[in-house]
Amino acid sequence: MLPILPSIKYFIETALTEDIQTGDITTNAIITENSQSIAKVIAGENIILCGIDILKEVFHSLNQSIEFQEIYRDGNKVSCGEGIIELSGDTRSLLIGERVGLNILQRLSGIATLTAKYVELTEGYKAEIIDTRKTTPLWMGMERYAVRCGGGKNHRSGLSGGVLIKDNHIKAVGSIRKAIKRIKKNIAGMVKIEVEVGNLKGVGEALDSGAEVIMLDNMSIPEIKEAVKLINGRVVVEASGGIDMESVVEVAKTGVDCISVGALTHSAPAVDISMEMG
Amino acid sequence: MLPILPSIKYFIETALTEDIQTGDITTNAIITENSQSIAKVIAGENIILCGIDILKEVFHSLNQSIEFQEIYRDGNKVSCGEGIIELSGDTRSLLIGERVGLNILQRLSGIATLTAKYVELTEGYKAEIIDTRKTTPLWMGMERYAVRCGGGKNHRSGLSGGVLIKDNHIKAVGSIRKAIKRIKKNIAGMVKIEVEVGNLKGVGEALDSGAEVIMLDNMSIPEIKEAVKLINGRVVVEASGGIDMESVVEVAKTGVDCISVGALTHSAPAVDISMEMG
Amino acid sequence: MLPILPSIKYFIETALTEDIQTGDITTNAIITENSQSIAKVIAGENIILCGIDILKEVFHSLNQSIEFQEIYRDGNKVSCGEGIIELSGDTRSLLIGERVGLNILQRLSGIATLTAKYVELTEGYKAEIIDTRKTTPLWMGMERYAVRCGGGKNHRSGLSGGVLIKDNHIKAVGSIRKAIKRIKKNIAGMVKIEVEVGNLKGVGEALDSGAEVIMLDNMSIPEIKEAVKLINGRVVVEASGGIDMESVVEVAKTGVDCISVGALTHSAPAVDISMEMG
Amino acid sequence: MLPILPSIKYFIETALTEDIQTGDITTNAIITENSQSIAKVIAGENIILCGIDILKEVFHSLNQSIEFQEIYRDGNKVSCGEGIIELSGDTRSLLIGERVGLNILQRLSGIATLTAKYVELTEGYKAEIIDTRKTTPLWMGMERYAVRCGGGKNHRSGLSGGVLIKDNHIKAVGSIRKAIKRIKKNIAGMVKIEVEVGNLKGVGEALDSGAEVIMLDNMSIPEIKEAVKLINGRVVVEASGGIDMESVVEVAKTGVDCISVGALTHSAPAVDISMEMG
Amino acid sequence: MLPILPSIKYFIETALTEDIQTGDITTNAIITENSQSIAKVIAGENIILCGIDILKEVFHSLNQSIEFQEIYRDGNKVSCGEGIIELSGDTRSLLIGERVGLNILQRLSGIATLTAKYVELTEGYKAEIIDTRKTTPLWMGMERYAVRCGGGKNHRSGLSGGVLIKDNHIKAVGSIRKAIKRIKKNIAGMVKIEVEVGNLKGVGEALDSGAEVIMLDNMSIPEIKEAVKLINGRVVVEASGGIDMESVVEVAKTGVDCISVGALTHSAPAVDISMEMG
Amino acid sequence: MLPILPSIKYFIETALTEDIQTGDITTNAIITENSQSIAKVIAGENIILCGIDILKEVFHSLNQSIEFQEIYRDGNKVSCGEGIIELSGDTRSLLIGERVGLNILQRLSGIATLTAKYVELTEGYKAEIIDTRKTTPLWMGMERYAVRCGGGKNHRSGLSGGVLIKDNHIKAVGSIRKAIKRIKKNIAGMVKIEVEVGNLKGVGEALDSGAEVIMLDNMSIPEIKEAVKLINGRVVVEASGGIDMESVVEVAKTGVDCISVGALTHSAPAVDISMEMG
Repeated sequence: MLPILPSIKYFIETALTEDIQTGDITTNAIITENSQSIAKVIAGENIILCGIDILKEVFHSLNQSIEFQEIYRDGNKVSCGEGIIELSGDTRSLLIGERVGLNILQRLSGIATLTAKYVELTEGYKAEIIDTRKTTPLWMGMERYAVRCGGGKNHRSGLSGGVLIKDNHIKAVGSIRKAIKRIKKNIAGMVKIEVEVGNLKGVGEALDSGAEVIMLDNMSIPEIKEAVKLINGRVVVEASGGIDMESVVEVAKTGVDCISVGALTHSAPAVDISMEMG
Repeated sequence: MLPILPSIKYFIETALTEDIQTGDITTNAIITENSQSIAKVIAGENIILCGIDILKEVFHSLNQSIEFQEIYRDGNKVSCGEGIIELSGDTRSLLIGERVGLNILQRLSGIATLTAKYVELTEGYKAEIIDTRKTTPLWMGMERYAVRCGGGKNHRSGLSGGVLIKDNHIKAVGSIRKAIKRIKKNIAGMVKIEVEVGNLKGVGEALDSGAEVIMLDNMSIPEIKEAVKLINGRVVVEASGGIDMESVVEVAKTGVDCISVGALTHSAPAVDISMEMG
Repeated sequence: MLPILPSIKYFIETALTEDIQTGDITTNAIITENSQSIAKVIAGENIILCGIDILKEVFHSLNQSIEFQEIYRDGNKVSCGEGIIELSGDTRSLLIGERVGLNILQRLSGIATLTAKYVELTEGYKAEIIDTRKTTPLWMGMERYAVRCGGGKNHRSGLSGGVLIKDNHIKAVGSIRKAIKRIKKNIAGMVKIEVEVGNLKGVGEALDSGAEVIMLDNMSIPEIKEAVKLINGRVVVEASGGIDMESVVEVAKTGVDCISVGALTHSAPAVDISMEMG
Repeated sequence: MLPILPSIKYFIETALTEDIQTGDITTNAIITENSQSIAKVIAGENIILCGIDILKEVFHSLNQSIEFQEIYRDGNKVSCGEGIIELSGDTRSLLIGERVGLNILQRLSGIATLTAKYVELTEGYKAEIIDTRKTTPLWMGMERYAVRCGGGKNHRSGLSGGVLIKDNHIKAVGSIRKAIKRIKKNIAGMVKIEVEVGNLKGVGEALDSGAEVIMLDNMSIPEIKEAVKLINGRVVVEASGGIDMESVVEVAKTGVDCISVGALTHSAPAVDISMEMG
Repeated sequence: MLPILPSIKYFIETALTEDIQTGDITTNAIITENSQSIAKVIAGENIILCGIDILKEVFHSLNQSIEFQEIYRDGNKVSCGEGIIELSGDTRSLLIGERVGLNILQRLSGIATLTAKYVELTEGYKAEIIDTRKTTPLWMGMERYAVRCGGGKNHRSGLSGGVLIKDNHIKAVGSIRKAIKRIKKNIAGMVKIEVEVGNLKGVGEALDSGAEVIMLDNMSIPEIKEAVKLINGRVVVEASGGIDMESVVEVAKTGVDCISVGALTHSAPAVDISMEMG
Repeated sequence: MLPILPSIKYFIETALTEDIQTGDITTNAIITENSQSIAKVIAGENIILCGIDILKEVFHSLNQSIEFQEIYRDGNKVSCGEGIIELSGDTRSLLIGERVGLNILQRLSGIATLTAKYVELTEGYKAEIIDTRKTTPLWMGMERYAVRCGGGKNHRSGLSGGVLIKDNHIKAVGSIRKAIKRIKKNIAGMVKIEVEVGNLKGVGEALDSGAEVIMLDNMSIPEIKEAVKLINGRVVVEASGGIDMESVVEVAKTGVDCISVGALTHSAPAVDISMEMG
C-alpha cells in the first residue's frame, strides 16, 4: 500500500487542474447534475497493478462520495480482460476524473509490469533489480513505489539520501582515493559511500579507499565476474549501464548484488487499462 | 521555442527540490566552492531535440551565472555522438542539476523523436499526426510542445478546450443526437463539437446532428475508407485507437484528416543523452 | 452546480488566509470556544444566485462540522429579503468565515444577475450572450460559471482553448489571409478559427480564407446587419465591443449568433447579501 | 509605488497560467519567433492610474527582456486618449501578456478612479474616505493600494490587524460593555478597539466602555450629527453603511473622521484601457 | 483552541513532506500493512501544553482514521511523567508522524512554558508580557498562539497590523515629530501609532506629537520610572529591550503597561515530550 | 556556501509574505519613495556566522538592486561588535526586510554557534558531533547546513535517507533480529542499517544480525565504554540521548564515533545580531 502522503494529494490536485482547466464542458452540458453511474476499470493486457489507491484519491479529490469495490490490490497480477476496481457514484465525477486516473494507473502499472519482467528473469540469482535516479521529474516517490510493486528495490532516495561518487566527481578531484577522503572528512558514517568505477583498477582503488558500495559501470561480463571475485563479498556490488532484458540474466550470473536499470522508470511503456461505464 | 511560462518555472523548481532534498551531499563534500567547469550535453543516438530551453532554465534555477553555448535548437535533428549544448560555470551547480536536466531533456526529446517517426511515415498523405489527452500528468504543456517539435499537432488542450462526446457520454444520454442537442443548448459556437463513433451508422448520425469533427474509434481500414467517403470533406475526420507504426500508413491512405496516437506521450521511450564534464 | 475542483479549494484557502492572517483577534477574544449559533444568509435585493457551494466550502474549510440548510440553489432567482441558506454550528467559525464567504457570493451573484439582465433583454432573438477573457485574474473559472448561472454562455476558455486572430495579429502578419494560412499550417482542425474584423471588407476576406467564427468588432448596427447578410449562416457571427444594456437589443435584432459583453465580468457590481446571526 | 512583494509575483504567475493554459495557440502559430514590436497602453477615458508596476511585472514574468517607457505613474491623472506606457520587445510576449496585464490595470485603476471621485466630493471636510474588508478575495493588498492611489486611506488590514466589534459579536455576548471587557482581558493595548453601533445609546455605551473608534452603522444624518456632538473628539468616528456618491457630502458635513465605502472595492467598474501595437 | 486554518494545514503538509521525503523506508519494511497500535504522548518535564490540535492534524493528514483520547488541552499545566494524549490506529502512520508531531508540540509548548514563567513572575503587577516580531519565520501565527497559551498577549500582527515608528524611521526623517506627522497624513485613525524612544526627551516629544503607544527601548529602571510618571496614563507604555527573567520584576514594578520579550519566541528551548507505543 | 535552492527561495518568499502582510504601513508612510540608505549588520556577541547568503536573498526578493559588501562568510567567527555585512540601496526595502532577514540569520547562527561549542569541547577525540531529526519543521535543510557551519555533521536526511530501527519498531516486530531481517528482505544494500539499542544485550544482537550502525540510546558512560569495546570498530557507534555540554566530553572519551545532540537544532538560543542604518 502507498500511503497517500500530502505530496501525492498535491500531485493529484495539480494533475486534475491541468486537465480540467475551468471545467469539463462536454460532461457538464450532457450529463445531468444528479446522474449516478457504475464504472469498471479493466486491464487490457496482463499487468502487475500499481496505483490503485492513487486512482481512488483522484476520484475522491473530485467527489468524496464516490464508492469503490476493489478487486485487485497493488502488486497483484491482473490478467487481460479482468476488472481491477468498480466505482459507483456521481456520473459527472466519474467522467471528469477518468483520464487523469487512468493516466496515472497506466504509467505506474507499466513500471511495475516492466520491473516484474526483470525480476522474473533473474529469479534464482542473488542479484536484486533496483531503480535509478532516472525517474520522471515530479513522479519520483510514486515511481520508486511502482518499482517495489513489481518486486524491485530502490536505490538511494535522492541527492541527500546517500553518497554516490560518479565519474565527474572523480575527474574533478583527481582520483577515487581523494574523493573518498573528502567524503570521509565531511560526512558522518550514517550513509553508505558508493563509487562508480569503469574497470578493475577502479575496483581495487575503491576497495582500498573505503568504498562501501561499488558500481560497475558499463563493464563487460568477464570484467564484472572478475570484479565480483576481487571484491569477494566485502562490499555491495552494483552492475549498471545499459542493461536490458536481453543482457540481464548474464549479468545476474556474475554474482553481483544489485542490477540497476534506468529503463524501469524512464522508458516503461504505459500498460493498457480502460474504464467502462456500466 | 517554448517560452518558459511561470508554470514551467514552477515545474522545474519542484523537480529540483524533489531530487536535491536537503542538498547534494556528495558534490558538496568533494567539489570545492569556487570550482568552475565546462560540460557538454551529447546525444547518444539520433534524436529530434526538445527541451533545450527547459534544460537551461534548470541550471539557471540553481545558479544564474551558468553560461550556455547552444549547438542545436528544439526541433533540430541531432545525430548520435553530436554535442547539443555546452555549459560552463560553477562545477557544483553543473553536477547538481545534471540528472534533473537530462531527465527532462531525454523524455521530451523521446516524444519528439517518436512523433517525427510517425510524421515521416505519413509524409505525402493529408493526415496529420496528433496527440491525445494521454499525457503524463503534470507534463501536459511540455509534452504537447514536444509533439509539435516532432512535427505533430495537438488535439484539444484539455476538458475546457473543446467538446469531445465519447462513448460513455452517448451511453449516458441515449444517442448521439441527444448528446449533441444538449451540447448546442449549453455551449456557444466558439468550440468545435467532436463525436467519437465506432461504426458507419454512428458516422451518419453524427453528421446529421451537426458534429464538426468525427473521431473514428478503433474502426477497420475498410470502414474508415467508407466513413471518409460518406463524410466527403464536410467535417474533420480523426482516426483513433491503437494505431501504431505498423498500421499508421494504411490509416493515412484512407484519407482521414488526423491520426491521433496516444503512445506519442504515454509510451515514448527516453532517448539517450548524457553530460560530460570537459 | 459547480463542482468544487481542487483549484477552487485552493482559491478558498488562500482567500481565508489573506483575510484571517494570524487569527481573528476580535472573535477569539469575545466568543467562547464552544459557542454554537445559527446564521442566515439573506438577499438585500433581487438577485440571480451564484456561488452557494463555494460559500459552503468556505465554512467547511474552517470547520467541517458546520451544517447547512439550503433554501435556494445556483441559478435561482432570490427576491429581496429572502433567505438563501441557513448555517448552524460553531459561532467562531461562522463569524470568521462570514466576510470571505459573502465577498465571493456577492461578486459571483453580481455577475449572474447582470448576465440575466442581458439575457432577458435579448429573449426571443437568436443571439446568445457570451463572456470574454476580461475576467478578474484568478477568478476565471468561477466567473465563467457565474455567466452560465445567469443564462449566458462562455467564449473560449483561454489562450489554448481556441484560435482568435485579433487586430494585432493581423497587423503583425499583414493580412487576414496570411494569418489564417499560418494557423492552418500549425494547428489541427480540432479548434475553431475565429477572426476579429472591423468592417465588411474584413468579413469577406475572413470568409474566403476559411474563418469559422467572425467577430464583428465595434461595427455599427447597419454594418452588422450587412455582415450578417453577407455571411448568411455559413459561419458563426459574434458581435463585440462596447455593447451595453442600451444597445444590446438593437444588436440582437441584426441576427448575429453571439453578443459578447466584457462588462459581465469586469464591471458587474456586487449584489447586496448579508448574514444575520439567529 | 507598490513594491512587487513575493505575494504579488505569485499572483501574477497564477494569473498568467490561468489564461495561457498550455500556450497561446494563435500567437505561436502566427507570430514568428524573433519578431519584435512596440506597443502602447492607452487610456480610453479619464482615469486615476493604478497598477503600472504590476503591468510591468506581468510582461517581465513572461520575458525579462521587454523594455518599458513610462509616461505616467500610479496615482497620476491620465486623460482619455493619452498614452500610459510604451512597451517594446518580443512580439509574442507582448501579445500573450496583454489581456492579463490590462485586466489588472483596468480593475485597479477603476478602484483608484472611483475612490478619487469620493475624495474630491468631500474635499474641504475633515472626513477621510476609507475602504472596508469587502475586497475581492485574493486581491486584498492590491486593492488597498488602489484606494490609496485614489487618495483614500485604509481600514484595518484584516482580522488580525485590529479589533472591530460588530453587531453579531455584541449579540453573542449580550452587550457592548461585556464585549469590550473581554477584549481588554485578552488583548494588549497595541491595537485600537472599534465598536459598531446603530444608535445613540450604543454610542454612549461604547464611549463609557473604552472604545477607541466608533463606527456609526447605517445611522441617519441627524443621528450622525448628534453622535459626533456626543463623542466630541474623544475617539475616532467612522460613518458606514450604504453611503454612495449622492449621500457622501451630507455625511462629510456631519463632522465624522472617516467614511467607509464598500463599493470602492466591491463594485468599482473597470476603466477603459487598451493596448495598441505600433 | 487554535482553529486549524488553511495556512496551518499547509504548514503541516509541508513539514511532513520535508521529513518523509519519498517514504519511511524503515517503517514500511518492518511494520505490516494492517498493524494497529496505541501510543501515548508523555511530558518529560513540567510544561504548559500548546499545540495539541496541531499534533492531531499531523496524524490526520497521514491517516484520517487515527483516533485520539485527549487528556490535556492547550494552556493546561502538565506535570513531568503525565500523559498528554493517547493515539490509536494504523501503526505505520503513528510511527511516520511521530517526529514531526513532537517537533511541533515540543517547540510550541516550549514557548508557552517560558511565557508562563514570565507571567508568573510579574503576577500582581499591571504589566502584561507580550511577544515581538522576533518569531521563527513561517511559524508566526502558531507562536503568537503559544504565547497566549502561556498567559502572554500579542504585539501587532505584522507590518500591516499597526504603526511602529522605530529608531531607523526617525533617523531617516529627522525627528519623532516629523515621523508622526507623515503617519497622520497617510494613515486613517484605525491603527495605533507607537513610537520607540530611548530617553525621556523622546518620551516628551512622542507625547506631544500624538503617539498612542510609547515603547521605552533599553532604558534603565530609573528612567522607565520617570517615563511612566511623565506619561501618567495618557498612552500605553511598553518596556522593551533585553529584559530577561532576572530583570522582569524590576521592570514590572515601574508601572509600565506591557513588557515585550523577544526571547519568548526566538530562544525558548523545546520542552521534553515523547511518544511511547503501548 | 549554501546554494539558494528553489526550496529556500520559496521559504524566503513565504516568510516575507507572513510578516509584510499587505504592506509595511509605517515605512510606506514615513520613508519617501526614492530614499537610499546604507545599513550594517552587526554581531552583538561572539558568534559563528550562518545564513549570510539567505539574508542577501531576503533583500533581493524585495528589491534586486540592493547591493552588498560582505565582511564575513558562513562558518566564520565574528566577534561581538564587528560588522558582518553592509547593505546599500532603497531605504524602504532595507527597513521592510530587516526583521525577516535578522530572524533567519540569528536563528541559524545560533545553531552554528552552539554546534561549535560542542565541537570545540570534543576536539582531539574521534567523536563527531551530529544532528538529529529534531529540527524545526520547514527549516530542516537550513538547520542541517547550520550544523555543518558550526563544524558538526549530519545524520540521515529524513525518513527516506537511511534505515533507523527504533525502539518502537523493535517492539512492534518482537526483536532486533526480526526487524533487521525484514529490512534486508525489503531494502537493497544502498543505505546503512542503524539500530537503536538500550543495553549491551541489544548491542550483541544488533551486531549479530547485521546492523551497520548502532545507536547507544541513553546508556551510562560505563555501558557505552563496554559497548565500544564489544563492537570493536566493526560498525559505526553513535551515542545519543540527553547529552549536553556537561556530559559530552565524558561521552567522547568512551571512543564512540558520533555523538548526536538534539538540542543543536531544537533548543539553540538565537544569537544577538542587529542592523544599523548608516
